[in-house]
Amino acid sequence: MSSPRPTRRPRPCRPAARAALPALAAASGLLALAAPLAAFDYEDWPPASRLAQAELEMGVLERVDADRLRGHHDLLCAAAHMAGTPGDATLIDRLVGAFEGMGLEVERHEIEPYLSFPVSASVEVLPALGLPIPLPLLERPVPGDPQSSGDAVVPAFNAWSASGTAEGEVVYVNRGTKEDFEALARLGISLEGRIALARYGGNFRGYKAKYAEEAGAAGLLIFTDPADSGWRRGLAYPEGGWANGSSIQRGSILTLPYPGDPLTPEAPAIAGIDRLDPADVGLPTIPVQPLGWDAASEILSRMTGPAIPTDLRGAWQGGLPFAYRIEGGPALRVRMTVEQERRRAATANVIARIPGSEHPEQMVVLGCHHDAWGVGAGDPMAGMIVVLEAARVLAQLAREGLGPKRTIVFAAWAAEEHGLIGSVEWVEDLRDRLHADAVAYLNLDMAAMGPDLRLSATSTLKRVLDEVTRMVPQAGADFSEGVTVADRITQGFTRETPFGFLGGGSDHVGFLCHVGVASAAIGAGGSDGVSYHSAYDSLAWYRQVVGDDYASAGMVTRFAAIVAARLANAPLLQLDPTRFTRDLPGHHDALALRAQAIDESRGARGEILAPGDLVAPRVEDWTRRLTERTQALEPRLDRVVDRVRRASARALATEDDYARANALLLAAERAWIDDGGLPERPWYRNLLAATDPWSGYAAWPLPGLRHAIEHADAEAIDREAARLMGCLDRLEAIAAGLEALAEEIESR
Amino acid sequence: MSSPRPTRRPRPCRPAARAALPALAAASGLLALAAPLAAFDYEDWPPASRLAQAELEMGVLERVDADRLRGHHDLLCAAAHMAGTPGDATLIDRLVGAFEGMGLEVERHEIEPYLSFPVSASVEVLPALGLPIPLPLLERPVPGDPQSSGDAVVPAFNAWSASGTAEGEVVYVNRGTKEDFEALARLGISLEGRIALARYGGNFRGYKAKYAEEAGAAGLLIFTDPADSGWRRGLAYPEGGWANGSSIQRGSILTLPYPGDPLTPEAPAIAGIDRLDPADVGLPTIPVQPLGWDAASEILSRMTGPAIPTDLRGAWQGGLPFAYRIEGGPALRVRMTVEQERRRAATANVIARIPGSEHPEQMVVLGCHHDAWGVGAGDPMAGMIVVLEAARVLAQLAREGLGPKRTIVFAAWAAEEHGLIGSVEWVEDLRDRLHADAVAYLNLDMAAMGPDLRLSATSTLKRVLDEVTRMVPQAGADFSEGVTVADRITQGFTRETPFGFLGGGSDHVGFLCHVGVASAAIGAGGSDGVSYHSAYDSLAWYRQVVGDDYASAGMVTRFAAIVAARLANAPLLQLDPTRFTRDLPGHHDALALRAQAIDESRGARGEILAPGDLVAPRVEDWTRRLTERTQALEPRLDRVVDRVRRASARALATEDDYARANALLLAAERAWIDDGGLPERPWYRNLLAATDPWSGYAAWPLPGLRHAIEHADAEAIDREAARLMGCLDRLEAIAAGLEALAEEIESR
Repeated sequence: MSSPRPTRRPRPCRPAARAALPALAAASGLLALAAPLAAFDYEDWPPASRLAQAELEMGVLERVDADRLRGHHDLLCAAAHMAGTPGDATLIDRLVGAFEGMGLEVERHEIEPYLSFPVSASVEVLPALGLPIPLPLLERPVPGDPQSSGDAVVPAFNAWSASGTAEGEVVYVNRGTKEDFEALARLGISLEGRIALARYGGNFRGYKAKYAEEAGAAGLLIFTDPADSGWRRGLAYPEGGWANGSSIQRGSILTLPYPGDPLTPEAPAIAGIDRLDPADVGLPTIPVQPLGWDAASEILSRMTGPAIPTDLRGAWQGGLPFAYRIEGGPALRVRMTVEQERRRAATANVIARIPGSEHPEQMVVLGCHHDAWGVGAGDPMAGMIVVLEAARVLAQLAREGLGPKRTIVFAAWAAEEHGLIGSVEWVEDLRDRLHADAVAYLNLDMAAMGPDLRLSATSTLKRVLDEVTRMVPQAGADFSEGVTVADRITQGFTRETPFGFLGGGSDHVGFLCHVGVASAAIGAGGSDGVSYHSAYDSLAWYRQVVGDDYASAGMVTRFAAIVAARLANAPLLQLDPTRFTRDLPGHHDALALRAQAIDESRGARGEILAPGDLVAPRVEDWTRRLTERTQALEPRLDRVVDRVRRASARALATEDDYARANALLLAAERAWIDDGGLPERPWYRNLLAATDPWSGYAAWPLPGLRHAIEHADAEAIDREAARLMGCLDRLEAIAAGLEALAEEIESR
Repeated sequence: MSSPRPTRRPRPCRPAARAALPALAAASGLLALAAPLAAFDYEDWPPASRLAQAELEMGVLERVDADRLRGHHDLLCAAAHMAGTPGDATLIDRLVGAFEGMGLEVERHEIEPYLSFPVSASVEVLPALGLPIPLPLLERPVPGDPQSSGDAVVPAFNAWSASGTAEGEVVYVNRGTKEDFEALARLGISLEGRIALARYGGNFRGYKAKYAEEAGAAGLLIFTDPADSGWRRGLAYPEGGWANGSSIQRGSILTLPYPGDPLTPEAPAIAGIDRLDPADVGLPTIPVQPLGWDAASEILSRMTGPAIPTDLRGAWQGGLPFAYRIEGGPALRVRMTVEQERRRAATANVIARIPGSEHPEQMVVLGCHHDAWGVGAGDPMAGMIVVLEAARVLAQLAREGLGPKRTIVFAAWAAEEHGLIGSVEWVEDLRDRLHADAVAYLNLDMAAMGPDLRLSATSTLKRVLDEVTRMVPQAGADFSEGVTVADRITQGFTRETPFGFLGGGSDHVGFLCHVGVASAAIGAGGSDGVSYHSAYDSLAWYRQVVGDDYASAGMVTRFAAIVAARLANAPLLQLDPTRFTRDLPGHHDALALRAQAIDESRGARGEILAPGDLVAPRVEDWTRRLTERTQALEPRLDRVVDRVRRASARALATEDDYARANALLLAAERAWIDDGGLPERPWYRNLLAATDPWSGYAAWPLPGLRHAIEHADAEAIDREAARLMGCLDRLEAIAAGLEALAEEIESR
């Protein structure tokens, strides 16, 4: 008798590892290492290096401690600490103290960026009859959660809003995306002198403000819709974890062609550096204010314009209990006043290190920002506690003789919320060193928010990340059955870990897009609620909704620390130069489709085009050629990487061989960097990956070519495709270098 | 200079037809016929027959008249006319008069089925403290719409509810589908003695009642959710066309293993026929009452149970402005009382005919029911006016010498709303004649509800329906540019008209599932609102929301009348016996997948199965064999049909040849009928198509095999697959018959 095996079920952990994990839980010491050594993925490590690494990784698995994580959280969330405030300075001291207490080298990387601070704000509905109705602009205190009110709460504001008063009729602009404003233009609905009302979601909020400003709006209100994070998702905090009608999402609206300090593009915002005049920087010029849906409902429910056209309705209707309309009508006027202060303010990145014993100049960086809109129990501290605990455990193991061969850097970034400022200033400060020696950057912003690990990464890091999923216990699953992250993350549908493509929105941008450092965003979600950027992002919320057992943080810490340890210790760098050849053709296809869509929409607009003006045939031709070259490169790289890895595994490689191989692997990483930068945003120098310049959060693979296609610029398409061909030239040269090396080793 | 051609755009009308249509608009008479003759699809008609047919079809296109349609609508919607009421009798008289006034032969087909009538109802919330809160059970009158109140409105009730009082705690059961009740059972939530609260949608409402009753519920309330037809769809009537909080969907909850009169399965409910004892028929035993969401909200908003589990939440949360819960908690009790009367009542189908000149015994039937929950401006009269106008125009053309060769029957069915009663009783009465001579049934229930034509049909009718889409002007489009239904219906994405698979829910069921008559449901939708089964299904609502120009009804009338005329006149029956060979493999694949899913869920439940117990391998084996035989049949049928059609087109076929060919084509239609019927519901005798016995509205292709698979019954799978093999045997014999005929003709 046999029970049928369903065809779709979680991929079983490989048997040896499954056997190993319970052993891990029960035993420690060298005896327990036999099984893991067989199970873990050290295929290209010379045998002599494997035992110590397995011991180190077992040490990480065992020593990551929920009580410690909880303690870090208490320490870091004691008070509000918005960038540039006294609370920020106190927190920086605490971080320095914490890292020093673990025995790490610590540096304060002091910067003085231009920041934006709230002063006051008001929004009123001006009905045709009767008195103005002031709208609430702060969350209701939650009984039993002291951090939901008082000093722990930062005023609800959109950093970088202009100061001033706007008054006018109302236009609902849906998400305020490029497409939404284009739809309004098609409908002939003017924003001129009116107040735009946008709901959160769909793009980075800064683009809502940018497009509203460009459309002539006098002001912008951005509200949280209950369909996105309110009752349609679940019960409100504190009964459940979701937003209530007073929840407000704070956040920056900065959109410049470069991240970081607005006054020092390309250069660090440190003492002695020239600053731009703020008047010369394209900062927002209209007042912008975030709202909860109780407040927004006071406006939306009074609107009297016609119904939303049926073709837009599905996308534009939100969760409030009435049919949304686009225009408020002349009888409904709204007045908003925002006062903010923009000034330079001191803050600091906190940089701790465990120096490498063999290659101290080579760096593996783990980072998370430390500033927050309040105490930030989730954003960012759900990630910062992971960085702290990883540092504590790896430092302890280093003291016991299991220190890294390359330097591991633990970074707490300043002023991320104001525009990725601290990390970008540090990258700009250390650009040349990072270009030469940075192995990888692992970003851990808000990393431990639930049981489901989610990974976005550059192609080169996917292999090592995938390997480590197979040895880290899954949060919330039965450890005694050896359930790993891999069992959960593949969801039973595939044997491959799904990876996101890295977009914008956090501190990896400087590393990835400016210097070309292999980067990953490591995070875990799936909790039943959201408190993002609201007054409810408190310890009480976190412990109720994500969990008081710190299982998520434990899982993420184990994962991130082991990935860092592998990157720091592997004789042959754990960067896979071949994976991009499998990822790239998909990007090529997407661009070819996009080019077709652009030609179609030009045709639909009635543009008269000569055959030579069509974008699609040109793009199809280039992407075919790019794909052909990539596909020709794939077996060649596969073969040679395999040869080098086998040579390493058989202990045939000398220190010199590793130095040559690793230099080539780093060069492969940087092959996509072009000092000329991207069209219209030269700070972005990675031709393979950039943030979407029109939405901010999303990603643009092959951004130079994409930009040329979006502008239907034939000449630019040729130019950008030629630059990509140049990248492939460099990668072919690297393949040749690896081949020469392999031959040399094999012929010895 | 040339403009780029977007790759996806509406398929251009074939040039000749495009040229023909404006000519049609401008001219009439024989001169205008030259172009259409080339354009229209008469490929298999002998040349001598084409001219008269083209003239007839042009006559239809020209004479269908919006003012007449409007006049029919006024006549039929003058008062409420629920089946078995005095209003029903008056309406039957009016229909008889209308058909007689057009010069048609008219018959009253009198029946006396068992029906259900509302007497009274009340629903109260019983709060822990305070007085009972009575909930509203009728729509708010709409100013300016006299038919939204008073005598035009039928009480809001679910026909066939039991009479009685139920009181208890509340359980929200989502849509009340089989899967929803299974989820509740998994969660261990009992319905025993409680009031179930279900929202409309997802299945036929009768199954909500059936499953609630089976789960032990004391009563059931069914409410309209604003996410489905309220504010989330658009503005409420009368500002827009959508439901308001008082809108209530009436409707039958009858679910028996046969449609039609509950007391006379298989036999007509006419005088002298034996009736079952109502106590022996499985009629509902708990009170069931429909609600609007204002009323439902009074219950749902008072519920205090835990949040819906996250894996169900997306599917279970509705549009009301709070997080839905499953259990109301002990403090919330609801009391409901329903009183209804069940009794036999007289009503009648109205059957009008234009007798065929050459084959009067052969019938093409157009039908729509005439009963309604009120005046029924949309349901059913948006279809009944199409039947009347098609009858008027075709009768007029017949008087001018363009009468049909086969008989065209125009049917107005009684008591559809109580359970497809009139049409089923007629089919049962005429079963043998229909089996011998019915060419096709075209159902027009609610047919003209908007500009977008939607077609569901048996495979054999798809060709003729597709052909006629190419010559009927699209409602709302520019006729002078020759925009046809085909241009719209293919949506530019495909060159094929998309067809639905015929499910349950209307009067085609008797024809299709009991006798195997080729059937189609012809309807048009896409208007901005819904008033289905509510007090707002009024002339004022229809003219505001669907349109006062009757463009939709004009389009559907032209379409249906021309389809009927082709079916009635074509020397070679316009039934395509080959198309099923293209449709069937998809059904086979779906069944194989379903079998896999069933094995998986049995495995997940922990059933211990011997390899022989697995369903999937057995089904895969059978479906492979069925597909192979079907695919072998395809080229053979294609070839021989092509030969017969070419013989017809070259005028080589004699009357005798046509008689033989047409008998074979009808036999191919009936090849799927098996007198043994389906498992557990022998009334359903079509092995190719039945309604879904678990949801009611949806369709089950290959229902016998599907039933066996759902019950994981290996023996039944073999038996049902063998029955399908028998159908393919019959179709092979028919192919052989056609081959012999073709050979005979070709050898002359």
